[in-house]
Amino acid sequence: MSNNIQKNYQTFLACDADFADANIVLFGAPYDSSTSNRPGARFGSSFIRADSYGLETYSPYQERDLATDCQICDSGDLELPFGDSAQTLAAIADHTGQILDSGKLPFMLGGEHLVTLGAVRATAERYPNLHLLHFDAHTDLREEYLGVTLSHAAVIRRCWEILGDGRIWQFGIRSGERYEFEWAAAGHTHLQKFDFNGLEQALAACQGQPIYFTLDLDVLDPGVFPGTGTPEPGGVGFLQLMQAAVQVCQKAQVVACDVNELAPHYDQSGVSTAVACKIVREMLLAL
Amino acid sequence: MSNNIQKNYQTFLACDADFADANIVLFGAPYDSSTSNRPGARFGSSFIRADSYGLETYSPYQERDLATDCQICDSGDLELPFGDSAQTLAAIADHTGQILDSGKLPFMLGGEHLVTLGAVRATAERYPNLHLLHFDAHTDLREEYLGVTLSHAAVIRRCWEILGDGRIWQFGIRSGERYEFEWAAAGHTHLQKFDFNGLEQALAACQGQPIYFTLDLDVLDPGVFPGTGTPEPGGVGFLQLMQAAVQVCQKAQVVACDVNELAPHYDQSGVSTAVACKIVREMLLAL
Amino acid sequence: MSNNIQKNYQTFLACDADFADANIVLFGAPYDSSTSNRPGARFGSSFIRADSYGLETYSPYQERDLATDCQICDSGDLELPFGDSAQTLAAIADHTGQILDSGKLPFMLGGEHLVTLGAVRATAERYPNLHLLHFDAHTDLREEYLGVTLSHAAVIRRCWEILGDGRIWQFGIRSGERYEFEWAAAGHTHLQKFDFNGLEQALAACQGQPIYFTLDLDVLDPGVFPGTGTPEPGGVGFLQLMQAAVQVCQKAQVVACDVNELAPHYDQSGVSTAVACKIVREMLLAL
Amino acid sequence: MSNNIQKNYQTFLACDADFADANIVLFGAPYDSSTSNRPGARFGSSFIRADSYGLETYSPYQERDLATDCQICDSGDLELPFGDSAQTLAAIADHTGQILDSGKLPFMLGGEHLVTLGAVRATAERYPNLHLLHFDAHTDLREEYLGVTLSHAAVIRRCWEILGDGRIWQFGIRSGERYEFEWAAAGHTHLQKFDFNGLEQALAACQGQPIYFTLDLDVLDPGVFPGTGTPEPGGVGFLQLMQAAVQVCQKAQVVACDVNELAPHYDQSGVSTAVACKIVREMLLAL
Amino acid sequence: MSNNIQKNYQTFLACDADFADANIVLFGAPYDSSTSNRPGARFGSSFIRADSYGLETYSPYQERDLATDCQICDSGDLELPFGDSAQTLAAIADHTGQILDSGKLPFMLGGEHLVTLGAVRATAERYPNLHLLHFDAHTDLREEYLGVTLSHAAVIRRCWEILGDGRIWQFGIRSGERYEFEWAAAGHTHLQKFDFNGLEQALAACQGQPIYFTLDLDVLDPGVFPGTGTPEPGGVGFLQLMQAAVQVCQKAQVVACDVNELAPHYDQSGVSTAVACKIVREMLLAL
Amino acid sequence: MSNNIQKNYQTFLACDADFADANIVLFGAPYDSSTSNRPGARFGSSFIRADSYGLETYSPYQERDLATDCQICDSGDLELPFGDSAQTLAAIADHTGQILDSGKLPFMLGGEHLVTLGAVRATAERYPNLHLLHFDAHTDLREEYLGVTLSHAAVIRRCWEILGDGRIWQFGIRSGERYEFEWAAAGHTHLQKFDFNGLEQALAACQGQPIYFTLDLDVLDPGVFPGTGTPEPGGVGFLQLMQAAVQVCQKAQVVACDVNELAPHYDQSGVSTAVACKIVREMLLAL
Repeated sequence: MSNNIQKNYQTFLACDADFADANIVLFGAPYDSSTSNRPGARFGSSFIRADSYGLETYSPYQERDLATDCQICDSGDLELPFGDSAQTLAAIADHTGQILDSGKLPFMLGGEHLVTLGAVRATAERYPNLHLLHFDAHTDLREEYLGVTLSHAAVIRRCWEILGDGRIWQFGIRSGERYEFEWAAAGHTHLQKFDFNGLEQALAACQGQPIYFTLDLDVLDPGVFPGTGTPEPGGVGFLQLMQAAVQVCQKAQVVACDVNELAPHYDQSGVSTAVACKIVREMLLAL
Repeated sequence: MSNNIQKNYQTFLACDADFADANIVLFGAPYDSSTSNRPGARFGSSFIRADSYGLETYSPYQERDLATDCQICDSGDLELPFGDSAQTLAAIADHTGQILDSGKLPFMLGGEHLVTLGAVRATAERYPNLHLLHFDAHTDLREEYLGVTLSHAAVIRRCWEILGDGRIWQFGIRSGERYEFEWAAAGHTHLQKFDFNGLEQALAACQGQPIYFTLDLDVLDPGVFPGTGTPEPGGVGFLQLMQAAVQVCQKAQVVACDVNELAPHYDQSGVSTAVACKIVREMLLAL
Repeated sequence: MSNNIQKNYQTFLACDADFADANIVLFGAPYDSSTSNRPGARFGSSFIRADSYGLETYSPYQERDLATDCQICDSGDLELPFGDSAQTLAAIADHTGQILDSGKLPFMLGGEHLVTLGAVRATAERYPNLHLLHFDAHTDLREEYLGVTLSHAAVIRRCWEILGDGRIWQFGIRSGERYEFEWAAAGHTHLQKFDFNGLEQALAACQGQPIYFTLDLDVLDPGVFPGTGTPEPGGVGFLQLMQAAVQVCQKAQVVACDVNELAPHYDQSGVSTAVACKIVREMLLAL
Repeated sequence: MSNNIQKNYQTFLACDADFADANIVLFGAPYDSSTSNRPGARFGSSFIRADSYGLETYSPYQERDLATDCQICDSGDLELPFGDSAQTLAAIADHTGQILDSGKLPFMLGGEHLVTLGAVRATAERYPNLHLLHFDAHTDLREEYLGVTLSHAAVIRRCWEILGDGRIWQFGIRSGERYEFEWAAAGHTHLQKFDFNGLEQALAACQGQPIYFTLDLDVLDPGVFPGTGTPEPGGVGFLQLMQAAVQVCQKAQVVACDVNELAPHYDQSGVSTAVACKIVREMLLAL
Repeated sequence: MSNNIQKNYQTFLACDADFADANIVLFGAPYDSSTSNRPGARFGSSFIRADSYGLETYSPYQERDLATDCQICDSGDLELPFGDSAQTLAAIADHTGQILDSGKLPFMLGGEHLVTLGAVRATAERYPNLHLLHFDAHTDLREEYLGVTLSHAAVIRRCWEILGDGRIWQFGIRSGERYEFEWAAAGHTHLQKFDFNGLEQALAACQGQPIYFTLDLDVLDPGVFPGTGTPEPGGVGFLQLMQAAVQVCQKAQVVACDVNELAPHYDQSGVSTAVACKIVREMLLAL
Repeated sequence: MSNNIQKNYQTFLACDADFADANIVLFGAPYDSSTSNRPGARFGSSFIRADSYGLETYSPYQERDLATDCQICDSGDLELPFGDSAQTLAAIADHTGQILDSGKLPFMLGGEHLVTLGAVRATAERYPNLHLLHFDAHTDLREEYLGVTLSHAAVIRRCWEILGDGRIWQFGIRSGERYEFEWAAAGHTHLQKFDFNGLEQALAACQGQPIYFTLDLDVLDPGVFPGTGTPEPGGVGFLQLMQAAVQVCQKAQVVACDVNELAPHYDQSGVSTAVACKIVREMLLAL
């Protein structure tokens, strides 16, 4: 009579290394309580994990293989208190900090974009010279949204309060209030409207600096990524985004990163989740 | 050249009286940030309003007509700050209070169930002897949920802190933690599992007392009402609920009420919204 | 080198008899231009035909088999001019008349309920003493709807103009304007609210008279039949409807009939189409 | 005790000017009874209005703001008689005429494309020299469709009967019958297949002439705009369309316009509605 | 620097005991290659696991708690070779056998119904006197289906080849070919049409015999369980099924069991998955 | 009394020639039992046929018309035994062989990609020098998939076993295991990653040779074709594919072909089916 049996638990595609052996630690931050338009990003990380089994571990783009060329641990999803953004950010900062303190790279799957603030807090504490690379359709530079300061619509503004002027590079932005664009243009952030022009220069300017890389998937055109809370027509294509993200992961000194704002229920075809899985695979291979 | 034109704005079915003339004032409370399972109840009130045009104003059940027999004002949806439950409840309490102070009956359309707390606060301030009638699949009696006290899963517990022992009647309950059932049974609330047995006695016991009536639509079986955050198989039927709700509105001294937890995106057939519309119509006719 | 090959065209389940051999002739009337709420009933007949292959030909209810016990021809869908109700009704009347003139029973699959008027015209011409049996959630007795007299909401009123007082029996009705109920009660139609009580008496009263049987599937509760333009909560169950419909087909002298108002796009689970298929199978077996 | 309360009614994004103060008057024409493929465009205008709240009033493309730079009145949706195209067109012509007679620009939201005919009739009466700019996937030049002349598939042919040869410019066309293309090529309309090449020349040729601009959203590729009755693969991109539409609104003397053929139920991701909202915002800002 | 971190892997609700400590071992058999109507049951087990987190561990029906009153191990999903039914059944038999040999009860989550055959093979080998209790809408007694003998439509016939006459009890059956009903009636199985009448007697008759209990969820009415390959209108209600299943688990000597035929993609409301989760919870509590 | 009536059966758009008169014979192969990710391609052919009525017979791209310029017979769908790939391939080979033996071109609509193997077997028997042109996102070159050799993921490898080295040209490939790419590069197939570069040279190299052309629609970007089992972001556009496919059909000596892997349930907008219909129309016009 045996005392055990083959078990088969879900992790992101081939990310089944032990924590001790891993260089990168994936985790999910399933929170979306400050979402102002359509909620549901809380389901992003679990859908990415479940659907990744349909993806090959090998990338014909980078000619690398997640199963043989990487050591990654997926620690699953955090349990976060819906409706309490302050507690949520503290829990994320704590988990991120533990990973950083073990000398590993934290790779967070959102959740809404507010979760980035928790991870940036933990990272900036450990890397005082931290810079932020931000791909998004939205500025996320509001002072507050309907009186709420811990809002997905204000998350980059909150990061700026930690990092200060000139340390934030934004790409792909095509939506925001007039005052946000003016505030950015006043020297607070480097903001590139609509596309990734200038990314190379940004990477050059940050050379040698620690980078937090945050990727809001709604930077993509909703034609290929409809599964998000606030779809913004007119976005970048999948290949454009994949190439830009790989470039960042290869050339910049990324010390922590996240991919967020997949709200899978709004895309019943599953394509948005497939897109997110592939972006995550390519980033993991490039890091 | 005329200076005006026929306009056609959306209200709930025939609820287009002026505020001054109305006996009942409808309003929406589109909030769902504390939802712990599937969010989306924020869209409940606007879907109810939009779909009500497909409903007749006449009820063959009560043989009354909303267009000719009632004077109701629909004041539209509140603008609520997602992610900040305290501010949200204050805004709801304020709006509810204004309606009560004008001698009218507030009829709130949620939103998640937490919104009830705002309206109960305003009502209990004006009716110190307030009793609460609660139809729901869930106990909603938790101390807190993952550390959050302003949670939909704790809303009736929060109401109890205002109203005290023996003033809350719960019907249809079929889900909760063991300790919640035990706490209720210890004399804090009157809790009827699964159905409406004992409703008549409850109404008799409350005779002459002011009633706040809160109806969580997930008390219904998800076969007929799938569009909700946490569907609980084994619920009551549509006709059972309609009769019970009409009975309450006719026999009890209802001073304020709400209908909540329609999350329309989870039911693309639109049936859940049709169910909500009809329940609201019948309650309005009965009040 | 052969000159032919096995072909496999879609008919309703086993209804592949030649026209000459058939007793019953099925056809589709894919029209929904007068639908006032949610259109889409035009797809009803083709979805019923396509999905019927998943159904057994044998009924354990009646213990009869469509493949061995019946001779039915499915002539496919009519081509109807969307937006022109007068032409549409003429085309339906013409097709129905051809079938009747061949001594066969026409069985029409809607489409919206207005299509019934075309078939009733052709049938009443040939059976001057025609009576109408009507299962529906709605009265369909309006004078006109927004100025339109050829409207699904007025179809039974139009039939009454042909048939006259006392020849129409309505069952399951739970929606309509006050004046429609009053008009029916004034002796124009026999109207049974909510259920099938009195069906046996109606069948007795019509004994020996030719019957047109029209079944609007929205008489069903939307819990089991969400795929329809105007779902009305509070309807009859599937077994209730099946038994009532079988009773009519077995006991009355049905000379023509129709089943209508499946709008399959509103029910992506396919259950509504499965329900329609089974009702049609049972009616065909009972006729 | 106050006599009033804050109300919050739905208009298109920030289009809440009084009729008297407005330069542009939006209205919805929710009709789709002549749709020959998949109906549902009747829901276009109300979905656009409801979803516009998720859009910023500021456009980073034009660097203008709908809230501060424009005066627009949204008069809501017309009540139109489904199944009666003649009455429907008369009601649209009447409403359009009232707006034109007040010296304001009518901006109609469809509905199916047939609604354009009502607005063109009213406009051509007041601007005898009217020209028509038409963006579409389809020629819409049929003589009739299954015997129906008031058909969405024939709407531009009907407009031509009013405007005559050489006054109609069509762009993006990729679907139609052979005889329609031949008829256009015989000098009746200027028809540009597949794209917007030649738009600049068309605008130059119309310089100084009053323009009716009709935009059938199915000119877009269904990859980014699936929510329409007859999706036609191979269409233009969102940015292409936005730029072309803005160019028309800025350079031509547009006296009336419409945007039509959003059928939102076919795109449950909501992206098609978001696309329509953004096109409407950009057109309003450019007019 | 720590060497580990809190991990959070998905199991069915609170079923996180070690294999050695468990009395019951859950596992998924994600296979559906022989499905003849709509495939997708392969996703049943993973959806049940993922959605179970929204369920309470406490049952107010049985007044027992999965977290405190049971010791259950969830070993995850098997990896099965799509398109090869023979290999699949061997893998299932092997896994089931291991669990039985450890003295534990195997609880399999399908997958289509064919998977039952693998588990029955392993169980019958170890319990020569095995009886089978079968809840289903379908007879599943075909000799073969389109030439395929390892078919979900023939699975109970295959089990009969192992178990022999009189050892199989079927309940809720409402669909099949005429010859299947006749074959059962010839003494091969005990077949109860439509409902659970006679269940008590069946349990009495099997007293003391080892039971394999197989529950095809399509025995439920599709009004409450649309998410299945072949929805059959006219089924039993949720409470009826729950009570019957609990009765079996409490009174019979169940040595192995399964719950199958959830195809979650056909029910985007998630209700079918919620139904399956609750049935599984109640069965686990009753075993 | 007439002995017949107008019938109207569903074929693909205007493909209603008699078998004897036709040059091309369409048929459906509704099989998907070896699908390893999301099943549902079995519904591809019937959805294509049903939705084709919404398409014009005239192509403005090729300026040809299916109704007047071609003679095509649609023989409907084969009845295939789900779960038995060997029998299925035999049935397909048989039907394909009959068509070839009549001197006609077989045009198969899948189904999953495995069905190609049946048609290639029949064609290679009759054309010993057969070459294969393959458009796909996936290599499909596995030895086996989870122990299954008759798998959609191995179908081109199986074809290679028949055709041998150097006779297979693959385009658009962007997914596979590392060893598959290496195996192709070792001279077994001509494999073009990501796009159609080199197609012209391939056509030149095959000049005069008989070609089997297999088109897996998932070569398209899922932005425009989400309705498939395994969507792979980063694919070719609709116009690119249409042009490449037309080029093949015009310039190569295509003796048989297929279009496969539409799984329509995953795209409820219907756009994927519309894409498939248009590709099929353009190929038929070009052949």
